[in-house]
Amino acid sequence: MRLVTITAIILVSTLFAATPAAAASGPWQALPDVAPAPADNPTTADKVELGKMLYFDPRLSSSGNVSCFSCHNVMEGGDDHRPTSIGVHGHVGGRNAPSVWNAAFLSSQFWDGRAATLEDQAKGPPANAIEMGMPNLDAVIGRVRNIPGYKPYFEKAFGAGEVVTMDNVAKAIAAYERTLITPNSAYDKYAKGDAQALTEQQVRGLNTFADVGCTSCHQGPTFSGPPLPVGTGFFMKFPTFPDSPYVTKYDFLSDTGRASATKDDADKNVWRVPGLRNLVYTAPYFHNGQVHTIGEAVRIMASTQLNQSLSDAQVADIVAFLETLSGPFPTQQMPRLPPTPGDLID
Amino acid sequence: MRLVTITAIILVSTLFAATPAAAASGPWQALPDVAPAPADNPTTADKVELGKMLYFDPRLSSSGNVSCFSCHNVMEGGDDHRPTSIGVHGHVGGRNAPSVWNAAFLSSQFWDGRAATLEDQAKGPPANAIEMGMPNLDAVIGRVRNIPGYKPYFEKAFGAGEVVTMDNVAKAIAAYERTLITPNSAYDKYAKGDAQALTEQQVRGLNTFADVGCTSCHQGPTFSGPPLPVGTGFFMKFPTFPDSPYVTKYDFLSDTGRASATKDDADKNVWRVPGLRNLVYTAPYFHNGQVHTIGEAVRIMASTQLNQSLSDAQVADIVAFLETLSGPFPTQQMPRLPPTPGDLID
Repeated sequence: MRLVTITAIILVSTLFAATPAAAASGPWQALPDVAPAPADNPTTADKVELGKMLYFDPRLSSSGNVSCFSCHNVMEGGDDHRPTSIGVHGHVGGRNAPSVWNAAFLSSQFWDGRAATLEDQAKGPPANAIEMGMPNLDAVIGRVRNIPGYKPYFEKAFGAGEVVTMDNVAKAIAAYERTLITPNSAYDKYAKGDAQALTEQQVRGLNTFADVGCTSCHQGPTFSGPPLPVGTGFFMKFPTFPDSPYVTKYDFLSDTGRASATKDDADKNVWRVPGLRNLVYTAPYFHNGQVHTIGEAVRIMASTQLNQSLSDAQVADIVAFLETLSGPFPTQQMPRLPPTPGDLID
Repeated sequence: MRLVTITAIILVSTLFAATPAAAASGPWQALPDVAPAPADNPTTADKVELGKMLYFDPRLSSSGNVSCFSCHNVMEGGDDHRPTSIGVHGHVGGRNAPSVWNAAFLSSQFWDGRAATLEDQAKGPPANAIEMGMPNLDAVIGRVRNIPGYKPYFEKAFGAGEVVTMDNVAKAIAAYERTLITPNSAYDKYAKGDAQALTEQQVRGLNTFADVGCTSCHQGPTFSGPPLPVGTGFFMKFPTFPDSPYVTKYDFLSDTGRASATKDDADKNVWRVPGLRNLVYTAPYFHNGQVHTIGEAVRIMASTQLNQSLSDAQVADIVAFLETLSGPFPTQQMPRLPPTPGDLID
């Protein structure tokens, strides 16, 4: 996976700095109506149907009571409203659950960007001891094979033969996740040219957001960085200004971020730039879930990343703008899961 | 709550014994298309909508990750496929989760019948230390009040004023649960007069089910006993024949059943007669979830309740009949839950 950090950020900062007047019409990008899919996993209705079933199926966990949905609640903000998540047997994880909404547009997955694709990501939690607790991926696909009602759905999605595989589980879940997108927010309407879609305060907030420098990193349709090839993460040092009083207050240094995945000291406290959509639904914030409100998050970022102290009015305006990045969420029908013959409990 | 046991059972046994030839056309009752509702909580679309939201909301639990749905999975058999359920912080409960499907037709709730209505039942798990772990119901309604997006839904369902109350939470959840019914199974079609709805083996199983005496207790539209006034539980001693070898094999005596609720020795090992619908989806079976297959459950019941040993053919026929009591399940749209301002974690 390639690393894009400082060079790209300087380029982008320069772009925004050079054209502040064009900010409201030029660089603001709406979310596409369809999420991109890799060549070897085109999104089909049959895959989405199967993926939705698997996403909601707690039998993919050792205890039989934790599914993707448990921590990535698609009836809400795509996370779980907890500082850090609870997996099998009450085990508590180390980082705040990222939202699944619009993850399909990210060029790398997890807080530290250690997975290149949604397909890669989907194979992480099932065999994680804290999350879904299965000993390995063979055991996960064993569970799925022991539920015979799944087979026809795999065959519909992937054809005949030995299709009940972990790769296809991941492909189906990723296909479903590519439908979990929220274009057409008030912001998106504005970005597409509807000047009336935002209030005066929201537009002021949008311009403040660019002017103070938030768009150095939080840009593009998801505000997680410029669109990059899949697998090319967009990373940033956080905190960039470690003397900010917020750093100790919220314990931002103890998790080393990307270095925990790469074991490279250069990646210490480097993080994938997170997106900013649907923040209204995803409190608490940051990798450790220690910050409760969007306003406080804005103050923190201005201080730790830009060495700035914003006025209350600036913060209120930026929050008003960020709130325009919410929904609308697609209506979804509940899947029906096939029955288990006997039980599947550890 | 009144206790109906031996007298009613003898009456019913006599009825079936006296008219075995009429069994296939007379006493077989289809599930009504609509569940009955109490006079003070008529089922309305607005209540059902709110109730579905609350049913799926994990923020009603102390840890924020356990909802009604966690143990009563309406995407499957209305339970959780575990011997006994897991609640907050990995705590394991003592009894198998009863299915929520068709609970609306039962005249008492819980394995020991300690709740008279769905409304009463809904107030149990949130303040149970093992299940949803809230200290009391005041804390539960406090959580709901802290999510301002709920208020308009309560007002739509219950009118203006102080309507965000625990009583209304319970009423809304009960109203939603009254939509969780599965009429129109193959059996129901047969009971309504479509002789072709069941196969020859299934009809043979149905008649064997009556002839050997299962219908002494498992009768009525839900096979949980005769329709009785709400609050009038239909109870039975289990095991009736404690010398059955299955009793020690599956540890059926250590949980004292209804006596644990009433503290009355006469209720020792007395249980509410459970329904038999959707068994295909609800393994494992019995109050302790120790039995994995429907066939074994049939053998056990014949031995412990009727002191009979069935042939393999009889068991196969009865299982074939019981499988006709499955679904169809209504399609359901996922609810959207209102966001939390800040977080709500213990």
